[in-house]
Amino acid sequence: MTVAQNIDTHPLSPIEHLLDLAAEDMKSVDIIIRERMQSPVGMIPDLAEHLVEAGGKRLRPLLTIACAHLCGYSGDDHYKLAAAVEFIHSATLLHDDVVDTSAKRRGKKTANLIWGNAPSILVGDFLFARAFNLMVETGSLDALEILSNASSIIAEGEVQQLAALGDISMSKDDYLSVISAKTAALFAAASEVSAVIAGQEPPVREALKTYGLELGIAFQLVDDALDYGGFETALGKSIGDDFREGKMSYPVIHAYQNAAQKGDEQQIGFWHKTMRDNQQAETDLEQAISLLRAQGALDATLDKARSHSQKAIQALDIFEDGPWKSALTELAAFVVDRVH
Amino acid sequence: MTVAQNIDTHPLSPIEHLLDLAAEDMKSVDIIIRERMQSPVGMIPDLAEHLVEAGGKRLRPLLTIACAHLCGYSGDDHYKLAAAVEFIHSATLLHDDVVDTSAKRRGKKTANLIWGNAPSILVGDFLFARAFNLMVETGSLDALEILSNASSIIAEGEVQQLAALGDISMSKDDYLSVISAKTAALFAAASEVSAVIAGQEPPVREALKTYGLELGIAFQLVDDALDYGGFETALGKSIGDDFREGKMSYPVIHAYQNAAQKGDEQQIGFWHKTMRDNQQAETDLEQAISLLRAQGALDATLDKARSHSQKAIQALDIFEDGPWKSALTELAAFVVDRVH
Repeated sequence: MTVAQNIDTHPLSPIEHLLDLAAEDMKSVDIIIRERMQSPVGMIPDLAEHLVEAGGKRLRPLLTIACAHLCGYSGDDHYKLAAAVEFIHSATLLHDDVVDTSAKRRGKKTANLIWGNAPSILVGDFLFARAFNLMVETGSLDALEILSNASSIIAEGEVQQLAALGDISMSKDDYLSVISAKTAALFAAASEVSAVIAGQEPPVREALKTYGLELGIAFQLVDDALDYGGFETALGKSIGDDFREGKMSYPVIHAYQNAAQKGDEQQIGFWHKTMRDNQQAETDLEQAISLLRAQGALDATLDKARSHSQKAIQALDIFEDGPWKSALTELAAFVVDRVH
Repeated sequence: MTVAQNIDTHPLSPIEHLLDLAAEDMKSVDIIIRERMQSPVGMIPDLAEHLVEAGGKRLRPLLTIACAHLCGYSGDDHYKLAAAVEFIHSATLLHDDVVDTSAKRRGKKTANLIWGNAPSILVGDFLFARAFNLMVETGSLDALEILSNASSIIAEGEVQQLAALGDISMSKDDYLSVISAKTAALFAAASEVSAVIAGQEPPVREALKTYGLELGIAFQLVDDALDYGGFETALGKSIGDDFREGKMSYPVIHAYQNAAQKGDEQQIGFWHKTMRDNQQAETDLEQAISLLRAQGALDATLDKARSHSQKAIQALDIFEDGPWKSALTELAAFVVDRVH
């Protein structure tokens, strides 16, 4: 298997196809997002605008919209919930960038670099509170429960990741539990809430929760591989962030375990120095990337991602065929195949 | 009028009296707080424990409990709401200490100094999410609305305060609007939610909201005076924090406006240098304190606090006499008189 795949044979990528299918709904979501990030305190909309303009594909609110359609929902509350999901995501991005002292996000300077840490923290809090305002307006206590639970799980995952910085002996299972919390919990909640507002039974809720969770895990694993992948221009994501921060991720765990199993002292020493002790020389990232490639660690990460993406697709079996099911199925495959 | 007042004639201070009256309830609140700050991620309870142990008087949850009794509430939901209020407060403290780069809080080292900024931010997020979990469990959408609105208003107030750092020409009205948001909004919400869960009519909700709001404004104004007051040991609060950060507060606005009115170039120059330009020499805090005293700025601040405390007390007129009304009345007076 190779990392390189050509997806140019489709006129639209699956995510673009889904965005196209949900175009009208996403306009409504965008209106709510822009309305609710307003405040008489000027720094708040300025900073929120920066984040909104930086774009990203609004994957999480898109899940809420798509899953609502999949459940045959015909009301209006999915717009507010989708906006709430995006606000929770934006709040965590703002806080993460302070926590990680990141300089770039989606190819743009991060808010903390422009405005400083303090506004990033406080505007994150503001957006988080606004997310709950929006949820309250839908009147769905179940949706509130799902998203407030997800929010505390996300924070737990972030703290767990922080505690594991430089923990070179971290297991793959522990790592998967971190990303299930910090990344996949919001994908899962974003999907499950739609079943809830559509009044679906528990098996449907569970199916969508599983879809979101597995998709989120796959998404994060691919992100991990991309951080060592060298596609900076294409993705607007600088590479090597995880490495520089000593942030453990699947490829490094895989490569380190391989090296440890073989008793390769040179490789073990390299990971100890760079990740555990966070002592990095100029050329160490390059060296890390070539070690990961040599150990098949990026391919192993993508294989793992693919298996989770397949679980996401299987979770949709419960639904009848139709355009939304197809689009969500294609999305799950694409999340892995976007590595091109 | 003098700042010094002796309150040693009472065996219990009014806040201790209220804590005594609410002792059983506060135990239940404490149990919930300790249960819900748990997490398998060890750093979270460690850090939360530090904050909880640091103590403080739990004034905000105490308001929720006292107001619930005042409204004749007989259920159990006030415990969860009181714990939620304390979690929201704790989350804002954790974030504030990062924003202000504070080293001390209630006489103890701040969490950000011990654990670093990142865990303080993330554990704040965790507690905030847990607050919403607790609210959801009460099933009261009205309570959720009140507290989520308060949360976004608090964040707005914090950002507004940040934007006003060193803004020596800030008006008293603008300042009062900042503290209404950053401090008093939570006092107001903590009080109002009790009327809501007790099923009280809008006038009662409004009365308790007003009580909390006015009490919160009085409380913050007194805090402002204390920051220039030199009671470090008694209160476990280091003095001069606001000054060093260039954080505008009522006493400084009052003194600066006086100086400007008189055209006192020396004093104007002093405030420009120290607050606007944040250029401070070793002896400048002492100098600031003596200028504030000479201008009657601390007394003016306490007078202003007293007028808000009286408004709080008036708001209770709607209730029949009884032990809880008395205790809340005494509390409002004490919030100002604690300056001894």
